[in-house]
Amino acid sequence: MASPLNHTSTTGEEMAELGKHDCVERLQWVLNTPKPPGLSQELIGTAVSWRKKVPFLNKQSGLKNGLFSMLKATFPILSWCQNYKANQFKNDLLAALTLASLCIPQDPMANTVVYTKLVLTVTFFAGTFQAAFGLFRSGFLVDFLSHAAIVGFMAGTAIVIGLQQLTGLLGITHFTNNTDVISVLKALWSSFHHPWNPYNFILGCSFLIFILITRFLGKKNRKLFWLPAIAPLVSVVLATLIVFLTKADEHGVKIVKHIKGGLNPSSVHQLQFNGPHVGEVAKIGLIVAIIALTEAIAVGRSFAAVKGYHLDGNKEMVAMGFMNIIGSFTSCYVATGSFSRTALNFSAGCETVISNVVMAITMFISLELFTKLLYYTPVAILASIILSALPGLIDVNEAYNIWKVDKLDFLASIGAFLGVMFATVEIGLLVAVTISFAKIILVSIRPGTETLGRIPGSDMFGDVNQYPMAVKTPGVLIMRLKSALLCFANANFVRKRIMKWVIEEEKGSKVGNAEKTIQIVILDISNLMDIDTSGIASMDELQKNLDSNGIKLAIANPRWQVIDKLKLANFVPKIGGRVFLSIGGAMASFSI
Amino acid sequence: MASPLNHTSTTGEEMAELGKHDCVERLQWVLNTPKPPGLSQELIGTAVSWRKKVPFLNKQSGLKNGLFSMLKATFPILSWCQNYKANQFKNDLLAALTLASLCIPQDPMANTVVYTKLVLTVTFFAGTFQAAFGLFRSGFLVDFLSHAAIVGFMAGTAIVIGLQQLTGLLGITHFTNNTDVISVLKALWSSFHHPWNPYNFILGCSFLIFILITRFLGKKNRKLFWLPAIAPLVSVVLATLIVFLTKADEHGVKIVKHIKGGLNPSSVHQLQFNGPHVGEVAKIGLIVAIIALTEAIAVGRSFAAVKGYHLDGNKEMVAMGFMNIIGSFTSCYVATGSFSRTALNFSAGCETVISNVVMAITMFISLELFTKLLYYTPVAILASIILSALPGLIDVNEAYNIWKVDKLDFLASIGAFLGVMFATVEIGLLVAVTISFAKIILVSIRPGTETLGRIPGSDMFGDVNQYPMAVKTPGVLIMRLKSALLCFANANFVRKRIMKWVIEEEKGSKVGNAEKTIQIVILDISNLMDIDTSGIASMDELQKNLDSNGIKLAIANPRWQVIDKLKLANFVPKIGGRVFLSIGGAMASFSI
Repeated sequence: MASPLNHTSTTGEEMAELGKHDCVERLQWVLNTPKPPGLSQELIGTAVSWRKKVPFLNKQSGLKNGLFSMLKATFPILSWCQNYKANQFKNDLLAALTLASLCIPQDPMANTVVYTKLVLTVTFFAGTFQAAFGLFRSGFLVDFLSHAAIVGFMAGTAIVIGLQQLTGLLGITHFTNNTDVISVLKALWSSFHHPWNPYNFILGCSFLIFILITRFLGKKNRKLFWLPAIAPLVSVVLATLIVFLTKADEHGVKIVKHIKGGLNPSSVHQLQFNGPHVGEVAKIGLIVAIIALTEAIAVGRSFAAVKGYHLDGNKEMVAMGFMNIIGSFTSCYVATGSFSRTALNFSAGCETVISNVVMAITMFISLELFTKLLYYTPVAILASIILSALPGLIDVNEAYNIWKVDKLDFLASIGAFLGVMFATVEIGLLVAVTISFAKIILVSIRPGTETLGRIPGSDMFGDVNQYPMAVKTPGVLIMRLKSALLCFANANFVRKRIMKWVIEEEKGSKVGNAEKTIQIVILDISNLMDIDTSGIASMDELQKNLDSNGIKLAIANPRWQVIDKLKLANFVPKIGGRVFLSIGGAMASFSI
Repeated sequence: MASPLNHTSTTGEEMAELGKHDCVERLQWVLNTPKPPGLSQELIGTAVSWRKKVPFLNKQSGLKNGLFSMLKATFPILSWCQNYKANQFKNDLLAALTLASLCIPQDPMANTVVYTKLVLTVTFFAGTFQAAFGLFRSGFLVDFLSHAAIVGFMAGTAIVIGLQQLTGLLGITHFTNNTDVISVLKALWSSFHHPWNPYNFILGCSFLIFILITRFLGKKNRKLFWLPAIAPLVSVVLATLIVFLTKADEHGVKIVKHIKGGLNPSSVHQLQFNGPHVGEVAKIGLIVAIIALTEAIAVGRSFAAVKGYHLDGNKEMVAMGFMNIIGSFTSCYVATGSFSRTALNFSAGCETVISNVVMAITMFISLELFTKLLYYTPVAILASIILSALPGLIDVNEAYNIWKVDKLDFLASIGAFLGVMFATVEIGLLVAVTISFAKIILVSIRPGTETLGRIPGSDMFGDVNQYPMAVKTPGVLIMRLKSALLCFANANFVRKRIMKWVIEEEKGSKVGNAEKTIQIVILDISNLMDIDTSGIASMDELQKNLDSNGIKLAIANPRWQVIDKLKLANFVPKIGGRVFLSIGGAMASFSI
């Protein structure tokens, strides 16, 4: 390699002394790497990781053992049973009782037979699609809801649900089905013009205050932890008894009514898989499956984020799927995640899923034994229980932290919040995901570049803006790409940007000291994970542009995939083999 | 910092000797960087670069000078005139004459007055939208067609256009308007069942062979370069004369007919901007603008890629826009890029846009003087001229190169090729762009990680797969992220992946030598350009997970934005301040 500048450097000499290996030999290491994994290997990576998770496909483990592991991986209840501890049961039991007080079945609607059959078949298809999504491991989509989006989503949902519960608290009958704030406020406003009964409000508010006081006491005194936990159940029992004894329902207090005792009847015979509309029904099932999943997963992830655990999207999908398939056999319609009930379960302090088992048993006993009593449960008390759980979900502190750390994240958060508040849950989620992805795309197509300088007393090179003490070498421009890909979408932009820098630096140096014009551009591509043919073409052109200005191009620290492709595209000889392991190595070879 | 391992390293000591500055002082540099540019500054970056390009907004340059620069930037013809050289004119003239032979106006359709008015108004709106896109600098969208996609797109289009020209060559009257191969072949097949005239075919083929022979001669003998250039024009003149003299049109040779002499009449008075349908018309104008731009830019970029120059998307959009606005004033319908004519201009060897000026003048003279003669030009000769230009556009060599270097790029190429061939141009482009973007998204959401080892004789650390000679330090796991962003879409995945690696390494070391379990994980985040709150949350959790296994986490070489956000989120104290400038520095601080 020729030495275009007349400086000798101590660093180069020191480097040569440092190791046992010769510098020249090390340079060869960059070019003579083993072949990196190909596209096919990378693409089947996902399949391999799946295969590892389903161990009976793995020949090393026995079939019996493997089958149990697979069942455990798909139905985690099998492993929960093994690890459940007695002291978790206490918390679970309390949470279950709270939730049971709310899980009174809603009034069955009067539907025609044909409609019922169609809806059950749609439920079956929705469940099948959801289970299929999970089994084909598309659960990674769960991650697309960012932490910030979830904070906004939860706050918005809490406000919307809170407003909706006001109908129960006020005993209003006619109300809107829309979920946005404007519709709800309008409906509330017009309800006030109709006569409404103050008993509902008084009953609901007194128990709401009771629940909030017990929660405050529970927080102040650790020994009274059980007080907030049983408060909701006590409220339901007390309120129901009050209504039953005072016959308040005859004085305008709205009650639940129409409870259908016992278990749901089988509906397997009602599913219809032949007939002219099956295709249409399956399509509706697909759409319903996606909408229900989106909502359930948003709810699930929200509480997972608060509690600090992680949701396995695949398991969640399989669970929802089987729930709906079995639901369609037992006269249930499409199920999705319920924000208000999850919020309640969360604020009641449930520990494990066993709380749901306890809740189911409680429900079963209540329905079998107390059907007549539950008839008198006032609606206002159910609303006040839900309302009591909501304030904890609006996390202003976290929103402030997000604002402090990342402005774009905050934008996504606000987008989700306003979307849920003023439109629908789906639009809120869509806004948040769009804002979040816009950043990924923006960074990919408009990456920055930075000029580097040597950090004093080391062989490191750093961004001259980040490290103001970094020293630039006259006559050499060291640049680094701020992108993991050099591809069609940014190659042209990056090339122009580098040329602009070179021209500006040349202008600057001409004004200063005329002799120190740029003679070498060292491009540190250590950040570059991959390059495509458009990227290589633009590197080619950059080299030509620099060459016509009498400037030499060198590249430092290329990664595996990149150096392999540059070699295949015959780019290395074009820059005279100036490929180096490090910027320091490049500088040394030019004897700077 | 405690020293968890009992090794002393020479490298650490050497580093301390190397520079004048103390190691500890350097460590402070990482944490005490200036504040990086905020979101607002990054977002207005685009606006600033635009301001620079429109210099009269720049107070430093005089208004008069600035205005001329702006005009030159928007209408590049002003700068072309300054730099045009005499010897470029020769090539331009030849290309212009070739193209003029093909640019015979097509038969005017018989339209109702209302329809004409509507179409002209749509043209005006389309032009206005296109010019607006350009002026608002959305030309960067041009880059989204990758090099590979263009290779496929050109080959597909060449084949489709070639098949369509067969109608002219065979003198078939009834034909399909669809552009896909299957429709065209079907139409061709059914045409063969109708009587067709062999004279068209004989005439077309003879001149096609003539043009191909002249091109071959021109390539073999450099002095005969003018032969292939004038061959098309000679063919048109000769063929027209033959038909005129032999009255071949009466024997079944299809001729152009119906040429309207002179210039187009003004149509300004036909534009309609009031009335009930203006909104609808503007909407159609927008759709037409986008479709016409997509096609024109795909054509333009294709030939730009072959010739090695670059298309400025903004200028292209402004040009198309003004073309359509002026077109709507002069009885023209929406214009887009013509693949066949550009191909012809390209193969005729045009040098600059002056060839278009020459062509326009030739056209004007021809239409004014030879209107009657051009009436007899046979359609078959026009088809043979276009056919002669097509084979050069199918670049099998380049396709092979793409296959060799990047398999996914090849997939995009094939996608564009098949899309254009079997569907429409738009679908072909859409397929290519989708495949290309899928890679960007895939790399962003599923980034890899790599384990690093010390490269012998240096202070560098490299991927142990890329550099098999790299040496791992027992008890320390050094990992690097292969991503430019740690964000909601990949944070969870990355965290799981790192934990998996740690567990696997621990298992491995337990089998080998029991004492060397992992005690330190050094995470090299030098590739990370930015992090969001989800990313920080997952780093937090990684730290907790490692901590509960008794493993210390250290991070090395954080970038500007990243260290700033980690400081804001209070992450640095959580890992005991173990933030280092380099991996070497981290190792030294642990005295390994």
